[in-house]
Amino acid sequence: MKSITRVAEADWKGNLEQGHGLVTTGSDSLREHPVSFTKRIEQGDRTSTNPEELIAAALASCFSMALSKTLGDEGASDPQLVVRAEVTLNLTDEGPKVNELLLDVAAIIANFSQEKLEHAVATTRKNCPVFKLMDPGLEKVNIEVHLRN
Amino acid sequence: MKSITRVAEADWKGNLEQGHGLVTTGSDSLREHPVSFTKRIEQGDRTSTNPEELIAAALASCFSMALSKTLGDEGASDPQLVVRAEVTLNLTDEGPKVNELLLDVAAIIANFSQEKLEHAVATTRKNCPVFKLMDPGLEKVNIEVHLRN
Repeated sequence: MKSITRVAEADWKGNLEQGHGLVTTGSDSLREHPVSFTKRIEQGDRTSTNPEELIAAALASCFSMALSKTLGDEGASDPQLVVRAEVTLNLTDEGPKVNELLLDVAAIIANFSQEKLEHAVATTRKNCPVFKLMDPGLEKVNIEVHLRN
Repeated sequence: MKSITRVAEADWKGNLEQGHGLVTTGSDSLREHPVSFTKRIEQGDRTSTNPEELIAAALASCFSMALSKTLGDEGASDPQLVVRAEVTLNLTDEGPKVNELLLDVAAIIANFSQEKLEHAVATTRKNCPVFKLMDPGLEKVNIEVHLRN
């Protein structure tokens, strides 16, 4: 069995409210990128990353890749896919929960139907390893599927 | 209840093996960053990101933030934390699985003991919203805790 391990590190200084962190990935994609609690719960901020958008990025990239595999198995050639993931943090009375996902899948595929695309998305939901990791912990999942021309 | 929704998008072209994607987050942290299946399963590659390191980054940043909260509640002042997450993709006979996590927590905290730090980490495991999201889907979790001076 082949195994591939990936790494990221967060350096955090201080308490929750005034403290701040720097997150770095094993690849060159994030280099000491800032994170903070106050910016995490400030909807419009674009200057720092946050765990929710990193989860969304993991899901969108894995799901699009896995869907390209499913579509190939089902006879589609050269698909063009746009997978958008929206991940919601809810600050509940029981504490913070990351428990909602909206996945919007748009595809351009020659000689393919909406019905076949929906079937491929449903199959991918069962196969995509990141979706499978998250699925048991999510309380609300919506998936929208659009075939474009 | 306050809710914060974060977004990322993956644009994918082609099939699994030769295809490639670009991933973009709502904040400026990732802008059309490349992903591909071949690089995802090539251990040493640093030129593209991959879902596993994005999950690791989400976990490390959320866990460090949540641990700073727990430590504050338990009387620690001005902690310095380094949280490293290692996430493993296993290519099994049943398909790919993202099912293993190693979390390494190192902390510098004045007047604190290893025992108290271990207790705070155990509490944070139950409170950290990203850990709670992933925990049900993970098959193997190791957490190492080091108090430094």
